[in-house]
Amino acid sequence: MESRLTYTEAQWDVVLAGFVLAFFLLLGLSVYLLASRRELSARYRPSSDAGAVIGLVACLSYVLLVAAWVSGFDYDPERATFSPSSSTLQFRNSYRYVDWMMTVPLLTLELLAVTTLTGLRARRTRATWMALGFLMILTGYLGAAVYEGRLGHLVWGLVSTAFFVPLYVGLLRTGLREARRLGEPAGEHLRGATLMLSWTWGVYPLAYCVPFFFADSTRWAVGRQLAFDVADVCAKVAFGLYVHSCAKARTAVDVA
Amino acid sequence: MESRLTYTEAQWDVVLAGFVLAFFLLLGLSVYLLASRRELSARYRPSSDAGAVIGLVACLSYVLLVAAWVSGFDYDPERATFSPSSSTLQFRNSYRYVDWMMTVPLLTLELLAVTTLTGLRARRTRATWMALGFLMILTGYLGAAVYEGRLGHLVWGLVSTAFFVPLYVGLLRTGLREARRLGEPAGEHLRGATLMLSWTWGVYPLAYCVPFFFADSTRWAVGRQLAFDVADVCAKVAFGLYVHSCAKARTAVDVA
Amino acid sequence: MESRLTYTEAQWDVVLAGFVLAFFLLLGLSVYLLASRRELSARYRPSSDAGAVIGLVACLSYVLLVAAWVSGFDYDPERATFSPSSSTLQFRNSYRYVDWMMTVPLLTLELLAVTTLTGLRARRTRATWMALGFLMILTGYLGAAVYEGRLGHLVWGLVSTAFFVPLYVGLLRTGLREARRLGEPAGEHLRGATLMLSWTWGVYPLAYCVPFFFADSTRWAVGRQLAFDVADVCAKVAFGLYVHSCAKARTAVDVA
Amino acid sequence: MESRLTYTEAQWDVVLAGFVLAFFLLLGLSVYLLASRRELSARYRPSSDAGAVIGLVACLSYVLLVAAWVSGFDYDPERATFSPSSSTLQFRNSYRYVDWMMTVPLLTLELLAVTTLTGLRARRTRATWMALGFLMILTGYLGAAVYEGRLGHLVWGLVSTAFFVPLYVGLLRTGLREARRLGEPAGEHLRGATLMLSWTWGVYPLAYCVPFFFADSTRWAVGRQLAFDVADVCAKVAFGLYVHSCAKARTAVDVA
Amino acid sequence: MESRLTYTEAQWDVVLAGFVLAFFLLLGLSVYLLASRRELSARYRPSSDAGAVIGLVACLSYVLLVAAWVSGFDYDPERATFSPSSSTLQFRNSYRYVDWMMTVPLLTLELLAVTTLTGLRARRTRATWMALGFLMILTGYLGAAVYEGRLGHLVWGLVSTAFFVPLYVGLLRTGLREARRLGEPAGEHLRGATLMLSWTWGVYPLAYCVPFFFADSTRWAVGRQLAFDVADVCAKVAFGLYVHSCAKARTAVDVA
Ligand SMILES: CC1=C(/C=C/C(C)=C/C=C/C(C)=C/C=O)C(C)(C)CCC1
Ligand SMILES: CC1=C(/C=C/C(C)=C/C=C/C(C)=C/C=O)C(C)(C)CCC1
Ligand SMILES: CC1=C(/C=C/C(C)=C/C=C/C(C)=C/C=O)C(C)(C)CCC1
Ligand SMILES: CC1=C(/C=C/C(C)=C/C=C/C(C)=C/C=O)C(C)(C)CCC1
Ligand SMILES: CC1=C(/C=C/C(C)=C/C=C/C(C)=C/C=O)C(C)(C)CCC1
Ligand code: NA
Ligand code: NA
Ligand code: NA
Ligand code: NA
Ligand code: NA
Ligand code: NA
Ligand code: NA
Ligand code: NA
Ligand code: NA
Ligand code: NA
Repeated sequence: MESRLTYTEAQWDVVLAGFVLAFFLLLGLSVYLLASRRELSARYRPSSDAGAVIGLVACLSYVLLVAAWVSGFDYDPERATFSPSSSTLQFRNSYRYVDWMMTVPLLTLELLAVTTLTGLRARRTRATWMALGFLMILTGYLGAAVYEGRLGHLVWGLVSTAFFVPLYVGLLRTGLREARRLGEPAGEHLRGATLMLSWTWGVYPLAYCVPFFFADSTRWAVGRQLAFDVADVCAKVAFGLYVHSCAKARTAVDVA
Repeated sequence: MESRLTYTEAQWDVVLAGFVLAFFLLLGLSVYLLASRRELSARYRPSSDAGAVIGLVACLSYVLLVAAWVSGFDYDPERATFSPSSSTLQFRNSYRYVDWMMTVPLLTLELLAVTTLTGLRARRTRATWMALGFLMILTGYLGAAVYEGRLGHLVWGLVSTAFFVPLYVGLLRTGLREARRLGEPAGEHLRGATLMLSWTWGVYPLAYCVPFFFADSTRWAVGRQLAFDVADVCAKVAFGLYVHSCAKARTAVDVA
Repeated sequence: MESRLTYTEAQWDVVLAGFVLAFFLLLGLSVYLLASRRELSARYRPSSDAGAVIGLVACLSYVLLVAAWVSGFDYDPERATFSPSSSTLQFRNSYRYVDWMMTVPLLTLELLAVTTLTGLRARRTRATWMALGFLMILTGYLGAAVYEGRLGHLVWGLVSTAFFVPLYVGLLRTGLREARRLGEPAGEHLRGATLMLSWTWGVYPLAYCVPFFFADSTRWAVGRQLAFDVADVCAKVAFGLYVHSCAKARTAVDVA
Repeated sequence: MESRLTYTEAQWDVVLAGFVLAFFLLLGLSVYLLASRRELSARYRPSSDAGAVIGLVACLSYVLLVAAWVSGFDYDPERATFSPSSSTLQFRNSYRYVDWMMTVPLLTLELLAVTTLTGLRARRTRATWMALGFLMILTGYLGAAVYEGRLGHLVWGLVSTAFFVPLYVGLLRTGLREARRLGEPAGEHLRGATLMLSWTWGVYPLAYCVPFFFADSTRWAVGRQLAFDVADVCAKVAFGLYVHSCAKARTAVDVA
Repeated sequence: MESRLTYTEAQWDVVLAGFVLAFFLLLGLSVYLLASRRELSARYRPSSDAGAVIGLVACLSYVLLVAAWVSGFDYDPERATFSPSSSTLQFRNSYRYVDWMMTVPLLTLELLAVTTLTGLRARRTRATWMALGFLMILTGYLGAAVYEGRLGHLVWGLVSTAFFVPLYVGLLRTGLREARRLGEPAGEHLRGATLMLSWTWGVYPLAYCVPFFFADSTRWAVGRQLAFDVADVCAKVAFGLYVHSCAKARTAVDVA
């Protein structure tokens, strides 16, 4: 557990830097999508607004991570180490799950809202994906934060995977099929978004498995935080910009 | 009382996570409704603005809950417990009532403003509902926070119920009748909003009754907080999105 | 003086709740007026903008009151009391006057800008009212916060009253006359605003007189704070919504 | 120096009240100018935007002053005094210069942008004025905050004056000439702005000279802070409203 | 290292003043570009939005620098010095790199988006420049913050330079060529932006080299911070205003 380890100066600093950079990028996404929403036709604005809310919520989530990272450790200038403090606000990796509970469902909506699906079928797919996404994270949270023993971690991880598989397959298949259907140039952007999604969403379950195979260590802890930062930024910012480009391209076609 | 109990790490963390998730969802609602208000015809914007203000006020209310939850407890790393601190800002469940005093009247306005009621009749219904809603929460607050003895709790709870019953009946009857009158598709969304309201508003009086039947315990305290989080999010965010969909559908009809 | 008394838990909590509720309502007013200003014709937007600034400034003033209320007292869990702390930021009732120095002049502008007065006469009335309002509060502040003895309190209170009387009379006469002139429905809203103003503005001088007749007590202190909260909300939020309705009605007439 | 003196309760409170009132007024200016910028023709929006940025930056500068005023002193409840603390953030009058380094150049731009000057001549005047303004404050800052001895204070004060004189003369001459050229009603507002500028800009050098003639005392310190508050508000808010009225009047003429 | 030195009052104050001034200027840029983006044609808004996000992110980065500067030192009123504290949040020059990792790639985009490059060629140049910019800062960060020894500093500095050279050459050549192509007046502004870029970007590698030639001293530390403040403001604010003027001029031409 991150909060019980003692870090060197460089390690503690790098984790902080990762949080702050992710915060900046997510905030930038949110400001950009909100400022430029009128450049999209009204039909694609729900997608863009979802992206903006994702960016805002996630960047506030990083504010919590930073606050906990600073308050959760005491600095020892002699040894140049950061060791666990006894303040109330401790660092928890599980704070990330709170963000995901809201942003993962919104990410599915963001993608869906630039496809050609409409009417009842769109509403049904949306409801299914958002529910699967929420349940996937909720059950993962139970395994990561509440039932902390090895068994709980395993069982809840499997339950979570049961939601993950159909959602992941559904997203990729729909994304790629719709990319073909849209054609150049909008389709190219949608394909980019889908591919971005395909690998980033794999990082999270992998990181979840690490404790099964490796003992806790400061290096793993630092690496895990950086991996989550990169995955979050790619899954939200890069993905969001691809979707936004797709919406812009479709707007141009619709208007023409 | 939540503030005098000692929590395990997992319990304290879960309550914090619930607050933060509710905060995120309410903030997201507010940003979305403000950003997209121009997509509605001017007639339905008061409804949408009420929803945005509800989301903003409630998410700030969760900021207060988080601040009090963190400042109200001291962490003991040895025993891994969170026990009552002596800081000035103690956690109080009754902070929630302050939010409700403002948001419950606004929720009635939000619903009413997408119905077909206009003119004097709309203004009268609005005034009645907002007054009933305010008085219901104010008297409930007196029972929950000021006259804390068993008797005060009971008497003020009953007074509050006297405001609750006509308001609840009025809201459901009007909501369902107007849903029929509006027809597809706007009516379907209004029915959704009304049904969402019907069960969420029942959670609050039930939670109020718990102390009559069960002694205080950490588990009850945690469960009560989570129940309020879920009810708040459903009564404000889910309800607000239903009402917004109704307003969007009515805008499309009016414009056509 | 509020800051030297010791409060029970229920008393301290109720005062905090009053501050937070007033904060919410004022923030809501500000967000609503800013979001919907384009629905008014440009002629009435200065009125609406004044209302929005009033709401924003006043809600930030309540942030200061909350900060001082929390930092100014120490909690004693044994006795369940809040007693004066020695922190730098002490609670002062006089922080309210700082808000009023800005918002009272703006309230007169808010009203005037929806009447039929134009040109030189409007500019002169505006200048007179804003100056009277500012001087009334400034001199009242001197009596309440600087010259704290009985005599200073009395003398400066009388000076303040000398500004109050012509301002109060001018506001009521103009408000009622213009309400008649505007006719239905705009006039009805203006009358509502004027009547709201008529009683709320009386609360402040009355509260100022309390120390002349009653010794300091915790109950008086709590009551005084709640009275100011109610008066502030009615004089700013309820008044502001009446004025806004008047502006909306006049916009509809002008456009038609 | 303000930070080494011990203040009575009334003195410390009055200084805090002055800061908070200035903060409110500057924030109000900024919100109003941003909200209403579309009511001006695009030509005058740079002036209005400069005013809005001035208001925002200056109000944040007062946030710093408030933070330093609170953190820089310890309250002694026995003696009812505020004496210097040993916290890191000490109160410094020189924080004000940081605000001015940015806002003084912007004030010259704000004025220039509503005159009839265009093209190369406007660009040259703007560059000259902004440079003079920046250098005037920068050198004044060196005298006030860095080279604190009597001699440094004097020499840098004189250098600053060398920038002040041509800038002040240029501003007044241009302001009055352009006011004549614009004629009624825009010219009247521009004259008001210029006259407001003429006396407010004199306050700052006078306050700078006080230490040459009078020994440090609490009363002088309090008086100096209040004088700066008043001058700041008049030079930014009142001036900004005059300029805004001028821009509104010119917009009406251009559109007609 | 800045965080292990002891500063005099004037030194510590000047560094704080530099941070606050940079914060103000960057915030002002961001507000101005966001408020006025509708005055540009949609084609150049991505450039302006990049500038606004750069300003916002960088000003928040200065908030972190200020927080760390205040929390990282203890004030000794006797000796009038600021010496290293043992708080968790220590001052680090490397926080600046976090800002640059995001803003340097955006600066290249900001420039490119007002040139005449379009289609595939624009997209390729953009991707190359943004990648080079990011890698340049990332590797510089490794040398400045992670591998702190002399050798690490040197090696990573050289790697960073390997990214710097092609980027710098590409930016200058494209900027100057496009300035010629655009002609008066848009080209003049683009040339200004390019020249501003040419010298500011040189400051950073020079500052990086200082530790190779000079031992650590308080004066160098203060000077380095001020140099970075000036370079940041020129490379973001002045550069951004040049680019914005270019976009405005091109909009006028496109519309005409
Ligand atoms: C399958 C699985 C998981 C999947 C998590 C995923 C897929 C998270 C995606 C997060 C995203 C996309 C965040 C965006 O910013 C958990 C919960 C780790 C638990 C173990 C099993
Ligand atoms: C009847 C009754 C109550 C009803 C509360 C209700 C109905 C609250 C609704 C809150 C909502 C809808 C919040 C929205 O976010 C109280 C006050 C608990 C007191 C006991 C009696
Ligand atoms: C006559 C009088 C006073 C009047 C105060 C008033 C009339 C205040 C109004 C405040 C408002 C309307 C606030 C709005 O939110 C003082 C200063 C107490 C001093 C004693 C004499
Ligand atoms: C001549 C002179 C000065 C002039 C200062 C001025 C003219 C400041 C204006 C500030 C404004 C207008 C602020 C706005 O809000 C200094 C620097 C005190 C130093 C001494 C000589
Ligand atoms: C070549 C080089 C560097 C270049 C840095 C540059 C060019 C930074 C530019 C920053 C800007 C433009 C910030 C904007 O606000 C480093 C990283 C110091 C490391 C040493 C080698
Ligand atoms: Na800490
Ligand atoms: Na974990
Ligand atoms: Na605590
Ligand atoms: Na309770
Ligand atoms: Na306290
Ligand atoms: Na008082
Ligand atoms: Na203090
Ligand atoms: Na000074
Ligand atoms: Na410190
Ligand atoms: Na360094």
